[in-house]
Amino acid sequence: MKKSLLIILLVTSLFSSTSYGQSDYKTDSIFIRKIFNTALSEGKCYEVLRDLTQKVGARLSGSAGAAKAVEFTRDVMVQQQFDNVFLQNVIVPHWVRGAREQAWILTGNQKINVPIAALGGSVATPKGGLTAQVIEVKNFQELRAMDPATVKGKIVFFNRPLDPTKMNTFEAYAGAVDQRGAGPTEAGKMGAIACIVRSMTTRLDDIPHTGSMRYAAGAPIIPAAAISTNAAELLSKTLTQNPKAQFHFQQNCETLPDTPSHNVIGELKGLTKPDQYIVVGGHLDSWDFAQGAHDDGSGCVQSIEAVRLLKVLGYKPTNTLRAVMYMNEENGLKGGVAYADSAKSKKEKHLAAIESDRGGFTPLGFGIVGTPAQKAKIQGWRNLFMPYGIHEIGPGGGGADIGPLGPQGTVLLGLIPDSQRYFDYHHASNDTFDKVSKRELELGAASMAAMLYLLDKYGVE
Amino acid sequence: MKKSLLIILLVTSLFSSTSYGQSDYKTDSIFIRKIFNTALSEGKCYEVLRDLTQKVGARLSGSAGAAKAVEFTRDVMVQQQFDNVFLQNVIVPHWVRGAREQAWILTGNQKINVPIAALGGSVATPKGGLTAQVIEVKNFQELRAMDPATVKGKIVFFNRPLDPTKMNTFEAYAGAVDQRGAGPTEAGKMGAIACIVRSMTTRLDDIPHTGSMRYAAGAPIIPAAAISTNAAELLSKTLTQNPKAQFHFQQNCETLPDTPSHNVIGELKGLTKPDQYIVVGGHLDSWDFAQGAHDDGSGCVQSIEAVRLLKVLGYKPTNTLRAVMYMNEENGLKGGVAYADSAKSKKEKHLAAIESDRGGFTPLGFGIVGTPAQKAKIQGWRNLFMPYGIHEIGPGGGGADIGPLGPQGTVLLGLIPDSQRYFDYHHASNDTFDKVSKRELELGAASMAAMLYLLDKYGVE
Repeated sequence: MKKSLLIILLVTSLFSSTSYGQSDYKTDSIFIRKIFNTALSEGKCYEVLRDLTQKVGARLSGSAGAAKAVEFTRDVMVQQQFDNVFLQNVIVPHWVRGAREQAWILTGNQKINVPIAALGGSVATPKGGLTAQVIEVKNFQELRAMDPATVKGKIVFFNRPLDPTKMNTFEAYAGAVDQRGAGPTEAGKMGAIACIVRSMTTRLDDIPHTGSMRYAAGAPIIPAAAISTNAAELLSKTLTQNPKAQFHFQQNCETLPDTPSHNVIGELKGLTKPDQYIVVGGHLDSWDFAQGAHDDGSGCVQSIEAVRLLKVLGYKPTNTLRAVMYMNEENGLKGGVAYADSAKSKKEKHLAAIESDRGGFTPLGFGIVGTPAQKAKIQGWRNLFMPYGIHEIGPGGGGADIGPLGPQGTVLLGLIPDSQRYFDYHHASNDTFDKVSKRELELGAASMAAMLYLLDKYGVE
Repeated sequence: MKKSLLIILLVTSLFSSTSYGQSDYKTDSIFIRKIFNTALSEGKCYEVLRDLTQKVGARLSGSAGAAKAVEFTRDVMVQQQFDNVFLQNVIVPHWVRGAREQAWILTGNQKINVPIAALGGSVATPKGGLTAQVIEVKNFQELRAMDPATVKGKIVFFNRPLDPTKMNTFEAYAGAVDQRGAGPTEAGKMGAIACIVRSMTTRLDDIPHTGSMRYAAGAPIIPAAAISTNAAELLSKTLTQNPKAQFHFQQNCETLPDTPSHNVIGELKGLTKPDQYIVVGGHLDSWDFAQGAHDDGSGCVQSIEAVRLLKVLGYKPTNTLRAVMYMNEENGLKGGVAYADSAKSKKEKHLAAIESDRGGFTPLGFGIVGTPAQKAKIQGWRNLFMPYGIHEIGPGGGGADIGPLGPQGTVLLGLIPDSQRYFDYHHASNDTFDKVSKRELELGAASMAAMLYLLDKYGVE
């Protein structure tokens, strides 16, 4: 970058950052300090998360756990005396895993058990499982270039790791997750009878990380599973030594009819503009074998806490503030869509929406989706966040569940925590309460409360 | 801050940050990218830490574990083909815990077992333990204001928590640790027969966190132990209900004669100025019941890795680069002092020293102790670190072990990682390998390697 340009940018950012006046700055910085102090010394969200993860537990859309989570979070907000707590109807997919999967590598006389997990949305294998030779590929291009005759009747094994050199692990994930989402369809199109996908984690471990996949319209419907990264390495090595090695797996998953469920919403009523809304939210559903502590129990309890903090500090909002627990982010996004549809049909003007769905780790920033003027306005508050380590305001996006509000002109903000550990636990059985740091979780909640306060006080225009 | 002043500061920082020229910037940013890519994709430090914590394990100064750790880290650097690996003699204190402590609260007819750990340097209780009433205080002022007659013969219980509202947990620690270091002396002076100190952790848990204490010259020598924070809360509550409740504890610790040990040093020889040194280090000793994964196994393996990264990338240093594992930071600092003494007596000019002793967490910055010009020069490299999340260069200090080099004109730098989780594990039995994130550890090592490279290439003047 040219020096002169950089100077202009710095000076511009400087003026925008103080343009709303020194007295406001002082008032706001004092109030935001109170938010953080309260979150860190009298915070409630860690204990709520303990119960959500350990008493409620796994809560995949359509499950009894999900229904329990709806009741639990509603009760929490009622007990915390939100002005109004209600459920919003959502029809969700209902996929069930059934009995746990079994899988092994067959090479020479050896049978080596390996950990797998059916991908969400996959069909079962035939009863008793299936056994076939394996074709390992790194990407769709490599697969498509093959002679279909060599793929036909085999299992396609997608084994491209997340790129460890990406500083932001979400970029590494984005660069690999096509294998999981569309891999089964690509494999099926080439004549494969099944698909195995390397787990989407930055670690080498023995835990399969599941996640959603989708069969493209008209594509063959073949069973698909995630395999642990250690087992993926072993399978790859085995195939190098013995290209005729076989893989066996059995899974018992099933898609049942769609079923009713709910978003859970708690409100703090706006004083002067109660018909305008600012929401803060996370998703309530988790995968079926995960406590979903980071994904996204953290985002749910932080959202409740963000609103509660403003309430206990006596803040009287201009607009109505909502904590929203969206249902079904993991395998359908029906909750996010239902929320936006409802807002549209009821003509509820949503100024802004904040989402936390990147884990309960130390917060480092917010991503913003909005007009350049809206971005600049919010970036102008940066100095208020700096004492709390929140230094990156702007880059990155909002979030999946709030995305459907975008077309209504809502400014979308995503809390951006440190991403280094997120994919250690993502969609896996080790995403448990003990992996969450109380302070890190509370700092995220306080950051969201501070942003909520500023958005409410100053608006977005 | 006045706007005009801020503009001047921004523009100054801008010029200083690019004052060494765009071509240098490009070369350096490419090389630093290589450092990070190599650390994240072919890093060795996580596996070295696994062995240091799990095969060697606890390594308090003077223990067999410490001797094993010396051999282990020497062997690692020999195997990694450092140019020169050697041991430096250090005489260290030799304190042993003996059989594990026992403690209970006696109230009414109840006997409630509670977890305690003798403080490092403390004497034992009389055989069979001691039992006495308890005086709870929050600070020395409160204690000194008491009538000595009410303290005499009792146990003083220091129960001031770490301030949870401090964003930097090291500040919270600094604000409470006087109770541990000097509490026993203060209690003894008032006639107490023993001293119990609330564990120095930001969490409420059942794990006692030990640490060093020191009897002031001439002060009474009374036994002192840390009590878990949950037990401290319980004891405090019990005393409110029953001020005559008693506390019993037994500990069996002992200070043996000083004993020989070692710093462990590995070198990459300087090409043109081999007699000038830049060191990067951590401390090899841990507490006796801790794997010392974050404190400070992480700093040790990161230091070795920082030098190794430059070596495998083919960097030929101007000055001699050293990875130093200091012995005895925890209860004496004899290793840091011996290192500086040796440097002085051998007239080894040390340009700069980098220390990592704040855990293997996501790195966020470096603290610098040096002249304003030296600070400004190093801060001028900030843009090179920004892509890796290292955004705070300057505030904060160097580190305990490198401190003794300060008077020789050495610039002191401390790696500053995210501090939120550090005191969850500090000086406690849960400071284990599984608490360290591979990526976070590697990012710290790469940050240190990048700083080492810049210091070597550009010097500090």
